[in-house]
Amino acid sequence: MSSTPPSIRPHLAQLPGYAPVVPLADRARQAGLEPEDCLKLDANENPYGMHPRVREALATGLSDPNFGSIYPDPNQATLRAALARHTGIDASMIVAGAGADELLDLTLRALLRPGASIITCSPSFGMYPFLADLNELNLIDIPRDHDFALPTDALLDAVSQSKGDSVVVLTSPNNPSGDLVPVDVIRALLTSGATLMLDEAYIEFAGLEMSAQHLLAEFPRLVIMRTFSKWAAIAGLRLGYTLANPDLVADLIKVKQPYNLNQAAEIAGIAAIDAAEEIGEQIDVIRQTRDSLYETLQSIEGLKPLPSQSNFILIEVDPAIGTGRELHDQLANLGVFTRTYSDPALASYLRISMPRHDQLNTLIERLSSLV
Amino acid sequence: MSSTPPSIRPHLAQLPGYAPVVPLADRARQAGLEPEDCLKLDANENPYGMHPRVREALATGLSDPNFGSIYPDPNQATLRAALARHTGIDASMIVAGAGADELLDLTLRALLRPGASIITCSPSFGMYPFLADLNELNLIDIPRDHDFALPTDALLDAVSQSKGDSVVVLTSPNNPSGDLVPVDVIRALLTSGATLMLDEAYIEFAGLEMSAQHLLAEFPRLVIMRTFSKWAAIAGLRLGYTLANPDLVADLIKVKQPYNLNQAAEIAGIAAIDAAEEIGEQIDVIRQTRDSLYETLQSIEGLKPLPSQSNFILIEVDPAIGTGRELHDQLANLGVFTRTYSDPALASYLRISMPRHDQLNTLIERLSSLV
Repeated sequence: MSSTPPSIRPHLAQLPGYAPVVPLADRARQAGLEPEDCLKLDANENPYGMHPRVREALATGLSDPNFGSIYPDPNQATLRAALARHTGIDASMIVAGAGADELLDLTLRALLRPGASIITCSPSFGMYPFLADLNELNLIDIPRDHDFALPTDALLDAVSQSKGDSVVVLTSPNNPSGDLVPVDVIRALLTSGATLMLDEAYIEFAGLEMSAQHLLAEFPRLVIMRTFSKWAAIAGLRLGYTLANPDLVADLIKVKQPYNLNQAAEIAGIAAIDAAEEIGEQIDVIRQTRDSLYETLQSIEGLKPLPSQSNFILIEVDPAIGTGRELHDQLANLGVFTRTYSDPALASYLRISMPRHDQLNTLIERLSSLV
Repeated sequence: MSSTPPSIRPHLAQLPGYAPVVPLADRARQAGLEPEDCLKLDANENPYGMHPRVREALATGLSDPNFGSIYPDPNQATLRAALARHTGIDASMIVAGAGADELLDLTLRALLRPGASIITCSPSFGMYPFLADLNELNLIDIPRDHDFALPTDALLDAVSQSKGDSVVVLTSPNNPSGDLVPVDVIRALLTSGATLMLDEAYIEFAGLEMSAQHLLAEFPRLVIMRTFSKWAAIAGLRLGYTLANPDLVADLIKVKQPYNLNQAAEIAGIAAIDAAEEIGEQIDVIRQTRDSLYETLQSIEGLKPLPSQSNFILIEVDPAIGTGRELHDQLANLGVFTRTYSDPALASYLRISMPRHDQLNTLIERLSSLV
């Protein structure tokens, strides 16, 4: 026994793992191109990069002799106060984490025993099946309809059948279909007694006024996840937050890693909140780019874009052109990196994250050359 | 049901939570002092702060237009290559995490089903009982002897009784007693078939040549944890790493959060490796400070320091002076923040992290004024 490595738990040994995005440098090398000649449109990042004011705040932070060497505040007091200003939600209802990813995992781990269920509606974020496997949870998938509409009645049935031993996980706007979860669906689920984890990773591109956060006071089983990775362009620094009932937040703070937030994320997050208005101008441009790309795509024969409230567009590709994967590969050869899916229901689809506005013509030219 | 918040799992509801270090600003305010007049000697941080070369690397990183906005590499290729250079261990045997904390949790989560056991020897790092509670594990504590020696036979008995359904967790040098785990104890445990998680968070203060890493090739059940929080002074950026058998490392990479490392930690970690020789000069001074403080403490009536291979010293306080907690509180009033423990076996003890060498006289003066 001492000569064999320790065995990983059986349910993890079978885990396929989360399929993460391949780094730009690797993809560029495969295409035989320089990274700066490529369009990285595969991970829904903010194409304008970190806002200059966030960068300045980090430079100022870095000049503090104590920067980096001291453990972060486990209670995240300064950041949570800033998030309270930003959201209008009391700090007692906010906890921050290393990306929404950490908080999704933490919340599932805190609420669900092994054998309980995540109820979700595919196609959606690939992290949910991964977290179900990791936490030994059943994944009850109630697939969206052919036009990606949410199957509300089937969802409510699944909640009722799970007898409270479940969490519903929905993304709003959904990734990859780009549509918001209608507020009447949210209300129906919560009224039925469901615990709803609503992942609002992209809500800033729909407009914060489209958030379900106004329901938090009425429904203590609503748990909202947000991230700074997309709107605030700090995916590399890892910052997300949860809005929830104060009792649940107190519990999550107790069970989280005490030093889960790194200081760079904390500084950048507070700076992004202070610069939210200026970053909002970037978001406006991203929304204009999206709407303009949507119109152009509608005019291209064989491509059918879905209306999007987010910073990406899902496109149905006509079989005459090829599968989503085939168009993806052809685009990759031209240095345009997009996203496809292993889910058979998405075989004819391709997701494109918004480029910078000045890159839009390049994207359309390269795409048009192939279809 | 819809009017009550979701319930946290029963084993977590009872969790006392990890008692983290109170931020310096809060402690200084309580003492009525400015933070710069205080000595923060409670969390074993590197008192010299981040090395200038690490700071420069972060400043350079920050000037890259893509800094922060792109997701990190899930495979940590560049950092793992640097860690391979740093340790002399192949990159296939290395995985990095957001502090050793994340890797301790991840490894326990990957290897042990709920109901399995962590076998450890108190007094030790407070994170182990926390992680046992979090992961629904039994904590089998085989307390150290009165002089803090490891009870090897009792440890081996516990391993044998657990029939493989356990992981032994030891710290070397131990926190708070400062002594290395003897290599014959490590060999005996591994030969008996135990899976040993050896937490070498402070090994750089003993000298990397004291590490058990030379046993990795022989014993695939040895898992070594390291951190950049202490020697490299980047506790605030969250970076640790695990050295283990390649099969286990591949498993850990599969089950970890794909984007678990933030970019600032990655840049700072690589820079610290490149500057390891210069940072080694700081470590030498910290060791000299420790040895010099040890001698002084030996000469103070009523204080009995333990020999330390680390960057802190555990001190036994004579009852005539008071309990460890009482001396701690008196020191705090003078702006010297140290660490005490709720463990009754440590009621008469106090742990002091090494200050900068130029602060040593202040520490000794303030301490001497009280005893």
